[in-house]
Amino acid sequence: MRKFPEPIQNCVAAFSRLPGVGPKTALRYVFYLLKQQKHDIKTMAGTIKELADKIQICDVCYTYTEFEVCEICNDPQRDTSLLCVVEDARDIATVEATDEYDGRYHVLGGTLNPINGMTPDRLNIRQLLSRVKSGDVKEVILAISPTSEGDSTMMYLTKQLQPLNVKVTRLAQGLAMGSTIEYADEVTLGNALKDRKRAEN
Amino acid sequence: MRKFPEPIQNCVAAFSRLPGVGPKTALRYVFYLLKQQKHDIKTMAGTIKELADKIQICDVCYTYTEFEVCEICNDPQRDTSLLCVVEDARDIATVEATDEYDGRYHVLGGTLNPINGMTPDRLNIRQLLSRVKSGDVKEVILAISPTSEGDSTMMYLTKQLQPLNVKVTRLAQGLAMGSTIEYADEVTLGNALKDRKRAEN
Repeated sequence: MRKFPEPIQNCVAAFSRLPGVGPKTALRYVFYLLKQQKHDIKTMAGTIKELADKIQICDVCYTYTEFEVCEICNDPQRDTSLLCVVEDARDIATVEATDEYDGRYHVLGGTLNPINGMTPDRLNIRQLLSRVKSGDVKEVILAISPTSEGDSTMMYLTKQLQPLNVKVTRLAQGLAMGSTIEYADEVTLGNALKDRKRAEN
Repeated sequence: MRKFPEPIQNCVAAFSRLPGVGPKTALRYVFYLLKQQKHDIKTMAGTIKELADKIQICDVCYTYTEFEVCEICNDPQRDTSLLCVVEDARDIATVEATDEYDGRYHVLGGTLNPINGMTPDRLNIRQLLSRVKSGDVKEVILAISPTSEGDSTMMYLTKQLQPLNVKVTRLAQGLAMGSTIEYADEVTLGNALKDRKRAEN
């Protein structure tokens, strides 16, 4: 098969590395770009380059930021007694969107999975413990997905945090907004029953 | 909602413009990139920039190429009496992959769709006609998808090409390799019947 010109092939190869993108989809992206103005293609290339040039990891909470210490860690208005532990920097935006939290964050960088080599030393756990030890944190909220890996990560963290004289909480489990009881799995429904609360009117 | 740092947002916006990519998928791509080495992110940016810098349109057949005239148009081994008309440059690779064709190509740049503003003057039809007039083309193969738009485009082209004393053909329609008659639609099966050929052993 005659190949496409090398710049097109290189670009297809680059896009193919993105998660969930195969060669056909990558080719579709590249042919879409080729139909755009040269200026717009260069703008896209520029925004990707800026990721490498401008984004760094926050020295305190390990999220992505343009500064040495991120805006949340630097914000004197935020409650320093609350520390919300998330798996990934992406989850911070999701928690922020709830408008229910004004503490700080700590990005773990994954969940424990010893089989895949995700041992405690590969996550920012040591750093979490030293933040709790040295700061005025009163409550650590484990905002980690309740999957089996997430659960064992939370159990591990709870065990590590217990000696530090800090309250450790995790997110409530129950029915999702708009869900129907008919289709709820028994574990979720069981958790919702166990953690039932007084109805308000 | 607290937003991501500006470079991340810009990059998400850029990826969101790709076909079939929404903000969630774009965010996934960007967070994937952020986990890569800075060097690899810059390489990806570089390959996209090279699309703009190095790829141009072939002066003869309108495909994407690194040169003024593409490799196929420049190849003296190719049969200049055959001209294969395709909708998009991408289709050339697909036809080449069959290993059944050694003529040249002409990229139309789309199919006729007057409602969406795709009138004959927006396609490379004038250029096709002048290629056929001035060259030694004996057969024009219309390798355009047999959709309703593709069909009307082929009918239009056939009408335009007829006065030029050239054979105009289109691809055979019939059962796809590996398909079952049970699920063939009646038009396809009808075409396969109409164009049946002597069985070989």
